[in-house]
Amino acid sequence: MLSSAAVTLRSSRFAYFAPSARTMSLHVQDMIFRQLFDRETCTYTYLLADAKTKDAVLVDPVIELAERDANLVQELGLNLKYAMNTHMHADHITGSGLLKKLIPGCQSLIAKASGAMADVHVEHGDKVSFGNQTLEVRSTPGHTNGCCTYVSHDGKFALTGDALLIRGCGRTDFQEGSADTLYDSVHSQILSLPNEFSLYPAHDYKGQTVTTVAEEKVYNPRLTKPRETFVDIMNNLNLDYPKKIDVSLPANKVCGLYNLPEDLAAKLKDQ
Amino acid sequence: MLSSAAVTLRSSRFAYFAPSARTMSLHVQDMIFRQLFDRETCTYTYLLADAKTKDAVLVDPVIELAERDANLVQELGLNLKYAMNTHMHADHITGSGLLKKLIPGCQSLIAKASGAMADVHVEHGDKVSFGNQTLEVRSTPGHTNGCCTYVSHDGKFALTGDALLIRGCGRTDFQEGSADTLYDSVHSQILSLPNEFSLYPAHDYKGQTVTTVAEEKVYNPRLTKPRETFVDIMNNLNLDYPKKIDVSLPANKVCGLYNLPEDLAAKLKDQ
Repeated sequence: MLSSAAVTLRSSRFAYFAPSARTMSLHVQDMIFRQLFDRETCTYTYLLADAKTKDAVLVDPVIELAERDANLVQELGLNLKYAMNTHMHADHITGSGLLKKLIPGCQSLIAKASGAMADVHVEHGDKVSFGNQTLEVRSTPGHTNGCCTYVSHDGKFALTGDALLIRGCGRTDFQEGSADTLYDSVHSQILSLPNEFSLYPAHDYKGQTVTTVAEEKVYNPRLTKPRETFVDIMNNLNLDYPKKIDVSLPANKVCGLYNLPEDLAAKLKDQ
Repeated sequence: MLSSAAVTLRSSRFAYFAPSARTMSLHVQDMIFRQLFDRETCTYTYLLADAKTKDAVLVDPVIELAERDANLVQELGLNLKYAMNTHMHADHITGSGLLKKLIPGCQSLIAKASGAMADVHVEHGDKVSFGNQTLEVRSTPGHTNGCCTYVSHDGKFALTGDALLIRGCGRTDFQEGSADTLYDSVHSQILSLPNEFSLYPAHDYKGQTVTTVAEEKVYNPRLTKPRETFVDIMNNLNLDYPKKIDVSLPANKVCGLYNLPEDLAAKLKDQ
């Protein structure tokens, strides 16, 4: 029999800078949480599950790694309910479609505003449930129109997609991007969460895995600026055209199952 | 004021497969835990700290990312006590020496059996303390003679270095490696920990971030085999000669501060 423990969080200012995947998880009862990484596109995929009912979701899966993810789902004895996305990605093809083939019964899920096909469309204020766990859908447009942040209030964390990155944010220069809109989204829907909430982004390019509301409110080099400065920064990033956008977007409109590169198409055919 | 919560872990068999950084962290009171990644060598660096006293350690830092790590230490308001290693790495240069320059007062720490210089040498059974947190040093040779696993009994996790990797283990064909010795080390010192302990390796090449004792006891494709089969597998891996070994080992004998490539030497000179 595993023991029980009464845990207390402290109230000092420092506590707001202390939280992490570990310290801030004290309120999560029976939630399985695994962060997974795609080294090529620096994408984070999240496997969340109710440890009691075994119902699970995979957030932002990558097609090349869908078999890795399906294998972990199987090893942990989970029932994958949704393969879901925070938004229609431009930098990689989603694993949703392949996961549906690998794990029959699993449904794809994305925001209606994304313009992508899916089994389930969600909107601001909806709840995504798996077992006794719930994610609140918060619409956070600006990087794309259909960007969502998924908030676990019990877990005290949010999956922020590309709206907020660790010490950064998603670009706003394509896919209906708007720096002005992103500024509103992040401040009203993400940085308005309690300071101790952990924030897990869809990408990180420096090997960082997690941040907190408190940290980003102090250290985010873009979003701590006044709106006008932020918009100016975002409009002058002069970033390269996204390498994979012309392949990714058409595919991601249909769960990653359109006009795939030969090796991936062959993989799908085998299923 | 942050609220307190009484949490209970369940006793079912499934619980052993459920744990993760999140579910298994319920016993960690006031520990800060951050996993950091080096995309080039797939090395994980761990920042652990006592949230109360702010005393911290960095385990397996990488020289190219020492500034990232020092910056995080500073942002979180921590006092870095040790820059420590699980062993003398062959695939990257340790960040210990550079961190000592970036954060005055910080000491380097490694196993005496590694043969590397350091401010503090540890042996099997020693304790590494930072604030009210303690890591038990367990000698786990086999990949190298000086490999250690650092165990947090309160946190119910272990940093396994290259002794045990997720669904794998470190190679045993150089640096005094021995498959036979590694088999003993992993079984007696790591897989003998309680099933629910989370295991954090020094590397992962597939984007996995954490595993558990229970999972590796069932799913590790090498270490679930009988000793003779394991030794046979390890002796026939036919791996390439480690790319960076000839630069890394001489440097890592002296905290990463020997005969450095020009760009890194210049960086150090600036400190």
